Amino acid sequence: MNPMATLEWLNTPIAAINTQTQQFAQARQAQLTKPPGSLGRLETIAIQLAGLQSTTQPSVERTQITIFAGDHGVTAEGVSAFPQSVTGQMIRNFSLGGGAINVLARSLGATLEIINLGTVDESQSEAKAETPADVKQHHLGQGTANFLHEPAMSRQQVAQALNIGREVINQAKQKATQLFIGGEMGIGNTTSATALACALLNTHPADLTGPGTGLDHTGVTRKINVIERALALHKPDIHTPLDALCRVGGFEIAALTGAYIHGAQLGLPMLIDGFISSAAALTAEQMAPGCKQWFIFSHQSAEPGHRLILQALEADPLVNLAMRLGEGSGAAVTVSLLRMACRLHNEMATFSEAQVSGKND
Amino acid sequence: MNPMATLEWLNTPIAAINTQTQQFAQARQAQLTKPPGSLGRLETIAIQLAGLQSTTQPSVERTQITIFAGDHGVTAEGVSAFPQSVTGQMIRNFSLGGGAINVLARSLGATLEIINLGTVDESQSEAKAETPADVKQHHLGQGTANFLHEPAMSRQQVAQALNIGREVINQAKQKATQLFIGGEMGIGNTTSATALACALLNTHPADLTGPGTGLDHTGVTRKINVIERALALHKPDIHTPLDALCRVGGFEIAALTGAYIHGAQLGLPMLIDGFISSAAALTAEQMAPGCKQWFIFSHQSAEPGHRLILQALEADPLVNLAMRLGEGSGAAVTVSLLRMACRLHNEMATFSEAQVSGKND
Repeated sequence: MNPMATLEWLNTPIAAINTQTQQFAQARQAQLTKPPGSLGRLETIAIQLAGLQSTTQPSVERTQITIFAGDHGVTAEGVSAFPQSVTGQMIRNFSLGGGAINVLARSLGATLEIINLGTVDESQSEAKAETPADVKQHHLGQGTANFLHEPAMSRQQVAQALNIGREVINQAKQKATQLFIGGEMGIGNTTSATALACALLNTHPADLTGPGTGLDHTGVTRKINVIERALALHKPDIHTPLDALCRVGGFEIAALTGAYIHGAQLGLPMLIDGFISSAAALTAEQMAPGCKQWFIFSHQSAEPGHRLILQALEADPLVNLAMRLGEGSGAAVTVSLLRMACRLHNEMATFSEAQVSGKND
Repeated sequence: MNPMATLEWLNTPIAAINTQTQQFAQARQAQLTKPPGSLGRLETIAIQLAGLQSTTQPSVERTQITIFAGDHGVTAEGVSAFPQSVTGQMIRNFSLGGGAINVLARSLGATLEIINLGTVDESQSEAKAETPADVKQHHLGQGTANFLHEPAMSRQQVAQALNIGREVINQAKQKATQLFIGGEMGIGNTTSATALACALLNTHPADLTGPGTGLDHTGVTRKINVIERALALHKPDIHTPLDALCRVGGFEIAALTGAYIHGAQLGLPMLIDGFISSAAALTAEQMAPGCKQWFIFSHQSAEPGHRLILQALEADPLVNLAMRLGEGSGAAVTVSLLRMACRLHNEMATFSEAQVSGKND
């Protein structure tokens, strides 16, 4: 990887969807031995994937999950229910196989990699040899700066993070990945994602701010106040989505954004997780309009602001399981639904094959 | 099986849930390396299963799916979008492995059996030797009678159907099944299930009737009218839930009801599918109060009346995928979510195991 590469690639066009395979899939669904439409969203997902994967036999057996992790300077303002050291500790937990996303990736047979973009306590997050999950080190600093007082990232850090996301997609594509899930870990990152979404949607923090990992009412009020003050500081200098990302984003959010943009450029279907990932997806869509055609939204997060971000993306996620963990976990949970949608599409008998009568009309 | 057995077993008490293993599971969830509650419904499902399975390590790897199939005399009134012959044809399709439920059962590694309780065209539904799905024949007649004019079933037929459901559960329990899914196939059975639910809930057919497999507006109006007239005929003779089942139910709905009651008596967790299955679950709960403790509701059906039946059962299904196929398909799709809930519960590291700091409070 060359983190110093330019950002010219951001202007590469978004890949086109294959409308022919999509139409073929739609026609096949009408011939399968079931009342038309009766598989509901499993039908539309199979049809969507047929268009995205440019095939009449969609499949998401080869799924890659990449977790981007980084620390947030704004944690100093008491905006999280957990201490900042947990980011590094959780990277170590992932490396040893104990996190929720490890269990889900094992259960799915999915590839799992962790990218450490910089935490306050590097001793905790060093990769161990021969550990269950692959941890790659791309330190951009010991966490972002506290955006209550200064930009979270320098231009160079943002560019590096975007390029790391791009390189993850290049490698995923080389491995013939059929579905990409980006996840995140970073104590304080709902604060960053909320500030970013507020800047991009021109919304008041009170409309978007939630408890994150478990703030009480007082904590949420403090978090709103921190975001309000930060936006007042930075708004005069925010003229583009990239400015917003730089001022109030985070390492992992910028890397996710780069991955989402490049995934759409290379035509890789991406399953979007919850609140933080959707804030990155919104940033990607604003930076490179049309990206969102390549997104499948997996779940409605319990974090209340997720609804507004999804609305802005005209997204209707598949399920609502009241999850709010991050780590790509909500997306990972729904991979099994996508797999079933594909298998039903590919394996069910048609009315003529099975000699079953069709509808009375 | 002895279909002439008495129905004394209906009075056997419902099994008690193990509150100790349930509490142990709840305590474990709070120790796993994630913010408390952040896995949402996957946490509550794991805790519920720990209580139902009387174990601290819940699992639904061994899942059995049994499809009960039968024809409905009321189909003569033009209440379905598909011809009646499709019931037998679909039994044949299941036997050859081409139905949605075959694909889902294969994908899950679940046991699948089909019970043919009686169709108009028996030639279509004969079991073939060496076919992918096991079809068992328990013919109670060539479909039910047309309940617009007479009781759908005789007392003897209802008793036989309930006993067949009971025997299915006995055999599932002998095979150490961890989760039971009952499904159904029967052209016309949303009409029967709607009439049954109207009788049990004392609701007007217009509030519960939907398009089933795909009726248009005129068809739905006709269906409402048929159910209204049928209820006017039978209501004076309906004094118990068993009376309602006998008058407007169906072979497959009665067998499902028997399975649900006996499953609750033997303490077998059951995953409930959509509209028809929930009407049977409602019948079971009214016949043997307390049954519903053993039910997990899988999905919200697109059939509009499902909502009212779920309300009556105080049920909040896991997902809404706009499915309306039956065959146990909605339940089968959610088995993967239950499996992930169990694996997360059993396999995630605790805060102390992973040396991760807990919440700041």
